[in-house]
Amino acid sequence: MRHLKVVLAYDGSEFHGWQVQPGLRTVQGTLAESIQHVTSEAVLPQGSGRTDAGVHALAQVASFALASPIPAANLKTALNHDLPPAIRVLEVSEVPPGFHARRSARAKTYRYRIYRGEICPPFLARYVYHHPYPLDEPAMMRAAGLVVGEHDFTSFAAVDPERKAREGEGEPVSNVRTVFLSQWERVVPPTDVGPAALGRAAQDHELVYIVRGSGFLHHMVRNLVGTFLLLGKGSLDEAGLRRILEARDRSAAGATAPPGGLYLVSVEY
Amino acid sequence: MRHLKVVLAYDGSEFHGWQVQPGLRTVQGTLAESIQHVTSEAVLPQGSGRTDAGVHALAQVASFALASPIPAANLKTALNHDLPPAIRVLEVSEVPPGFHARRSARAKTYRYRIYRGEICPPFLARYVYHHPYPLDEPAMMRAAGLVVGEHDFTSFAAVDPERKAREGEGEPVSNVRTVFLSQWERVVPPTDVGPAALGRAAQDHELVYIVRGSGFLHHMVRNLVGTFLLLGKGSLDEAGLRRILEARDRSAAGATAPPGGLYLVSVEY
Repeated sequence: MRHLKVVLAYDGSEFHGWQVQPGLRTVQGTLAESIQHVTSEAVLPQGSGRTDAGVHALAQVASFALASPIPAANLKTALNHDLPPAIRVLEVSEVPPGFHARRSARAKTYRYRIYRGEICPPFLARYVYHHPYPLDEPAMMRAAGLVVGEHDFTSFAAVDPERKAREGEGEPVSNVRTVFLSQWERVVPPTDVGPAALGRAAQDHELVYIVRGSGFLHHMVRNLVGTFLLLGKGSLDEAGLRRILEARDRSAAGATAPPGGLYLVSVEY
Repeated sequence: MRHLKVVLAYDGSEFHGWQVQPGLRTVQGTLAESIQHVTSEAVLPQGSGRTDAGVHALAQVASFALASPIPAANLKTALNHDLPPAIRVLEVSEVPPGFHARRSARAKTYRYRIYRGEICPPFLARYVYHHPYPLDEPAMMRAAGLVVGEHDFTSFAAVDPERKAREGEGEPVSNVRTVFLSQWERVVPPTDVGPAALGRAAQDHELVYIVRGSGFLHHMVRNLVGTFLLLGKGSLDEAGLRRILEARDRSAAGATAPPGGLYLVSVEY
């Protein structure tokens, strides 16, 4: 058997998340079907992690074993021909047998987009979280670094439906993760190119959260964003954020931010 | 009665076109419902023209009469609260009783986006026409100006389902229109801002058609684009384009380009 790695971009608004579910359109299920159409082999590609319904990917990674000798470049072309336009295969490559998209991952980067203009262009509605209300953006930017480092992120973790299964496989189930980068930035769209065609006003900026870490718990990025939003609204200060992190209690942190603003940007191996 | 003008942006991929149709979700029908929710008045807003299923608008204009004294700014806010995110009201203003969104229009501008990269980002699939195959883009750019001026555009007109109704109203039914501007341009996205978050490669440009005219026949912009694509593919030359224009025969021109790349950009009064 050959071992293959695929890199995928997808529009999460068209799927019930990554993970295959009976009777629902999912990214994993749709990809498995296309692999079967192309190679006649029934495989279930393993993702670097699940993304929830509505969450997007710029470069999700999945791996699977295949008997077919089809060259990687041809498989990429054939999959893109068979898949719906909402999923694109960016790369297909051979990997050693030991490679596993989730277990081999060393770091992941996510991005979360908040649209700050008064009116959200209809073309962005599925792709950003629209929050036109006042926010102390500098306070959010200053506090972003507080979660950098190795921490127990239980306060930011939803109950993980796969945890039991992983315990059974002998995988570590600690909620300790290392965040390498945590940063809020302001992004102002250019006025003279394509995006203007999508109806965005020049002054309507986005507030974008970028986080890179060794791994992320279920809902962790969206819960971090929800908590930074409390800081932006002035209902939490930096000392409060530190206390939430130390509390190791999910009920201490902010609400889970909506899925449409979240992108899995890259996975490092 | 007051007379009101609204300016709308919408994502055409979520609607069966502008015009109200029984049992189908249309922009006109959805807007009429929201006006009724807000004011309890049953009105049918008149658009500057229909857009087909899948065609987008950055600034469609519609007009209607209203008894309600609700201030324009409040109506805008209330409509945006009631409408789905795929339709946004950008402006509401009072206009004189004689104003009619279609009959009063003096010029319209459309844009058509062709995505030229090998892989179309999933986030753009509904918003561009993906054409990664070779095109003689300079030839298309050079030929664009040939349709400028006053011409009978019958060769680029689909049969207009509303034509009979307009004849009954005594409106002109000539296929003569004046094109003020017709231009192809290459648009390269920036790499350091938001759009990169949507997975677009820096070198993957768009080929964009911009056309401004006194008015447009049914499918006219999409038929012009389809015909310029014949030039890009080398199966038509400038002399051939002139012959098509003079033929006044729809069967002479190229195929109708897909709707997702087309945007109604603005309407002038």
